[in-house]
Amino acid sequence: MANDLDRFPHPHLTVDVVLLTLRDGVLHTVLVRRDQAPYAGRWVLPGGFVHLKDTLDAAAARVLETKVGLRQVFVEQLYTFGTLDRDPRARVVSVGYYALVHERLLAAVVAPGLVNARVVVPWAGERGGKVALHGPDGARLSIGFDHETIVGMAVQRLRGKIDYAPVGFELLPRDFTLADLQRVHEAVLDRRFNKDSFRRRLLASGQLRATGRREIDVGHRPAELYRFSRERTSGAQRGN
Amino acid sequence: MANDLDRFPHPHLTVDVVLLTLRDGVLHTVLVRRDQAPYAGRWVLPGGFVHLKDTLDAAAARVLETKVGLRQVFVEQLYTFGTLDRDPRARVVSVGYYALVHERLLAAVVAPGLVNARVVVPWAGERGGKVALHGPDGARLSIGFDHETIVGMAVQRLRGKIDYAPVGFELLPRDFTLADLQRVHEAVLDRRFNKDSFRRRLLASGQLRATGRREIDVGHRPAELYRFSRERTSGAQRGN
Repeated sequence: MANDLDRFPHPHLTVDVVLLTLRDGVLHTVLVRRDQAPYAGRWVLPGGFVHLKDTLDAAAARVLETKVGLRQVFVEQLYTFGTLDRDPRARVVSVGYYALVHERLLAAVVAPGLVNARVVVPWAGERGGKVALHGPDGARLSIGFDHETIVGMAVQRLRGKIDYAPVGFELLPRDFTLADLQRVHEAVLDRRFNKDSFRRRLLASGQLRATGRREIDVGHRPAELYRFSRERTSGAQRGN
Repeated sequence: MANDLDRFPHPHLTVDVVLLTLRDGVLHTVLVRRDQAPYAGRWVLPGGFVHLKDTLDAAAARVLETKVGLRQVFVEQLYTFGTLDRDPRARVVSVGYYALVHERLLAAVVAPGLVNARVVVPWAGERGGKVALHGPDGARLSIGFDHETIVGMAVQRLRGKIDYAPVGFELLPRDFTLADLQRVHEAVLDRRFNKDSFRRRLLASGQLRATGRREIDVGHRPAELYRFSRERTSGAQRGN
């Protein structure tokens, strides 16, 4: 695609995807170990360069599919990161995305060479900034680029959004109990809710549909199963 | 900055800034008439290419300063637009910003060759999508690129944000009456509020500080003047 503009040096463009899931009631995000410089051996977000024929959403979907092995999950643009020194090779601007997936789906398809890192938010209510990412052995992982900042922004976005947008459902299987949904909200917001008022509020929101069925194979009285009652929202519909 | 990456063709990167103000209780945005192809003669958002040594925030600030003549206004990253055909010259991805300014400040500094276009949102509560932009004579303006979509996204962001973030103050002078603030919220959200409950809610939010002074030179009983009581928020502090 030769044109006058190509005479000018211009920044490179990547996408990086924060894929969040809940495991044991704690937010986790998928990281890939880099096998080349810069930051060889460190853990980074799944990402890739934006090709000339890729929309940004398509680039994010390609990254999820080729590096994690997932498709058709909730994914939405987050923020674009453009500090001057974020990549030692060249000026690289990265469009951050975040994706949400239920733990069992991730466990079923996750590609080899990945880690599902525990996201430790240093303090409740933090707005943006870095988080700490810990591996399965509990040790803090060494992260490349500014990817801790990107994860921090994704957690902030999810926290800001969960109370007004139907986004918590994306972290659950299709059918879930009200207790499951409450655990998602508590994990994301790092606070406890009163069971009765949480249920009243969510049932009044019109976002839930009772399936008429109950849990099976549980050691307690089976709870009613619900399903999200509107079309799934998607960043791909938002004008990009 | 020669490096291996530069061997690969990669998208160009611009910033485009939606500068919103209120005039006569209606949202307006500043447009520039393009004097070269593509879209010569059409109206577009103030924008420019991201230089290798510019952060994205710096590029947005430079655009506001050089194309509009404004500095130190509220400006925050909005969304990054990357459809394949948005620029006929080449693949150009644009990082959208929105800025907010009080009408009197804009009127004092606005550069020649600009228009302050009235933003017509086709229906209340619309999420994203295009708006219509009208010139001072009331006629609809012919807009270049996907800039109506970017303005639509900025209006959507402002609507989503005004109820939980102290952003409405940016459209007012430093000292304002509660009636001024109510007019801002009504104009942005395109709905009417009850005067008493609006005042109660805003006063309870802790965002307002009474100045102890009243309006001067008004034809009615002078109302008390308030000032925003926390530090101004800025997109520049959010990790980019």
